[in-house]
Amino acid sequence: MNTIKRVAIVGGIHGNELTGVYLIKKFEQYPQLISRDSFETLVLLGNPKAFAEGRRYVDKDLNRSFISQDLQDSTLTSYEDIRAKAIYQMLIPQDLPPVDVIVDLHSTTAKMGLSIILGSKHPFLLKLAAYLSDINPLVKVCSTPPGNRGYLRSLCELGFVIEVGAVAQGVLDAELFQKTEQLIYTIIDYFSKFNQGIVIDTNHTVEFFEYVGAIDYPRNEFGEIQAMIHPQLQFKDYQPLNPGDPIFLTFDGKEIIYEGTSTVYPIFINEAAYYEKGVAMCLTSKQQLTV
Amino acid sequence: MNTIKRVAIVGGIHGNELTGVYLIKKFEQYPQLISRDSFETLVLLGNPKAFAEGRRYVDKDLNRSFISQDLQDSTLTSYEDIRAKAIYQMLIPQDLPPVDVIVDLHSTTAKMGLSIILGSKHPFLLKLAAYLSDINPLVKVCSTPPGNRGYLRSLCELGFVIEVGAVAQGVLDAELFQKTEQLIYTIIDYFSKFNQGIVIDTNHTVEFFEYVGAIDYPRNEFGEIQAMIHPQLQFKDYQPLNPGDPIFLTFDGKEIIYEGTSTVYPIFINEAAYYEKGVAMCLTSKQQLTV
Repeated sequence: MNTIKRVAIVGGIHGNELTGVYLIKKFEQYPQLISRDSFETLVLLGNPKAFAEGRRYVDKDLNRSFISQDLQDSTLTSYEDIRAKAIYQMLIPQDLPPVDVIVDLHSTTAKMGLSIILGSKHPFLLKLAAYLSDINPLVKVCSTPPGNRGYLRSLCELGFVIEVGAVAQGVLDAELFQKTEQLIYTIIDYFSKFNQGIVIDTNHTVEFFEYVGAIDYPRNEFGEIQAMIHPQLQFKDYQPLNPGDPIFLTFDGKEIIYEGTSTVYPIFINEAAYYEKGVAMCLTSKQQLTV
Repeated sequence: MNTIKRVAIVGGIHGNELTGVYLIKKFEQYPQLISRDSFETLVLLGNPKAFAEGRRYVDKDLNRSFISQDLQDSTLTSYEDIRAKAIYQMLIPQDLPPVDVIVDLHSTTAKMGLSIILGSKHPFLLKLAAYLSDINPLVKVCSTPPGNRGYLRSLCELGFVIEVGAVAQGVLDAELFQKTEQLIYTIIDYFSKFNQGIVIDTNHTVEFFEYVGAIDYPRNEFGEIQAMIHPQLQFKDYQPLNPGDPIFLTFDGKEIIYEGTSTVYPIFINEAAYYEKGVAMCLTSKQQLTV
C-alpha cells in the first residue's frame, strides 16, 4: 500500500454506544473536520434502528454479522444481516475500490481508556498504534479473539476499533467524547502525513496486549451467574492479574481466585454486553512489539 | 399504623438494573436473611421478561404502569400492563391485608450513592430515612415528581425506592451490591425493632432533597440532543449547582450555563434511561426536615 485513498469512520454499530453515534452525527454535519486533500473519508452510522430503540442490536449483534459466507447468504434476513450486507456494499463496492482503512468506534463499561483494538498486526497499524500510544498515555493497544468472527474491522486489512470507557450504555460522557474526537483527528492527520511521505518520528516498539483467552462468570446448571467481578478487579483493565489474586465474589461473599499459572492482563472486565456472550473478562499477555 | 405485618421487597422492576435482580434471587434462595418473627416478607422479581432480554422493559416502563385507572383497564394488554396487574394482586390482594411497606430496588448511571426516594413524607418514612442517613453517610434522602405517575411505590403509603449508583445498566457492581444488601438488612431490622416497640435513637432532623423540577437536554427541531452533560457536572449528584455554573457542553465545545435564580442540587444527572423521557437531570432543593 503506497497511499490511502478511502477511509471509513463508522460509529453506532452498537446502537447504545453513544460516543460513536454522536461523533458520526457531528462528522456528518461538519465533514470538513475529517476531510483531508489526499483521501476520501466516508462516515457511517452503523445501526440506526438499534440506536432509535436504545439497544445494542435489534435481532443479532451487528459486529458479529460480517462473516463472508453470511454476507453472501440471501436467506439471512434479520435486520442486522440486511444491514451488514448494505454496509459491506458501501465499504467494498463492486464498481469502486474498497476502503483502505476502517475506523470502528465503540464504547465499553470496562475502564479501557482509549483502546485501539487491531484486526491484524499489519506494520502500518502497529506503527500507527505506537505513535498514538506514544503521544497519549490513555491509549492502549490490544487484540481480541482471532478467527472469522464477523467483526466489521475484519472487512479490511487496515481495520481497527477505537474502544473507549468506562461509560455506561446509553450514556454520553462529554470527556470521553472529546478525547475520542481528538484521537480521530490525530489518526486522520497521520494518514494525511503518510500520504505526503512525511516520516513521523515515534518509538520503535509498542506495548501490545495480545488476547490469550476469556473467562466466564461462574454459573449454575441453568446458566445463571453465581458471582460478580471482585471489587479489587473492577475497573482494573490492563493491570496485572497474578495467580492467587481474587477475580470473583460470590453472592454470599466468598472470594474466587485466579488459578492461572502466570500473570495476565485482563481487559473488558465487567462489560455489560458480554454477560450474554459468556465473557466476564478477556485475558491478554503484555508484549513489546517492534514496529 | 401500630405494627408492620407485611413487607414487600421488589427488585428488577427494570430488567437491566441488576443489583436489585440478583439481591432478589439471593433472598429467594435464602429467605431467612430477610425474615423476621413479627412480620412477613415477600420478595418479588418485577420484570423477569425484561431481565431475560437485558432491557429496562419490553413494551413500556413498568415503573410508570401502576396508575389506578390503568390497573383496572382490561383493554391494556402490553406485557408490562399485565405484569403490573399481577404485581398489584400480589401486593394488594383482595382476600388478604395489603402490604404495609414496599421497598423497591433500583440502580442508576448517576452517582447517587445509596439514595432513598420517598413516596411521601409520612413520619414513619422520615424517621427511617433520618436513621439510615445518620448511620451511613452514603445514604441520601430525596423525592421525585409528585402526582399520579404510576410508580410501584405509590401503591402503598410506606412505599420507597432504594436507588443506587453510579452503575451501568446490565452490570453488577459487587461493592454496590454488598452496600445495598447491608442497607436492606438495616431496614428490615428497623421494622423488627419498631414492631417490638424499641425506640431507636436518631437525629431529630433529616437532610431532604425535595424535587423542584427537571431539565431536558438542548434539542433540535427533530428532538435530537445537541449537547452533553458538562464534565464539571458529571457524577456531581447532590452537590450545589449555582446560577452561572456550566451544565451542558455542545458537541462543538460551547458551554451552556445554568440560568436559574437560586442554588439547586441536581440528581439523576445523565441517567441513561431518562434520555427518552426528556430529562437530563432532576433538580432538588435541600431542606432540613424535623422528624
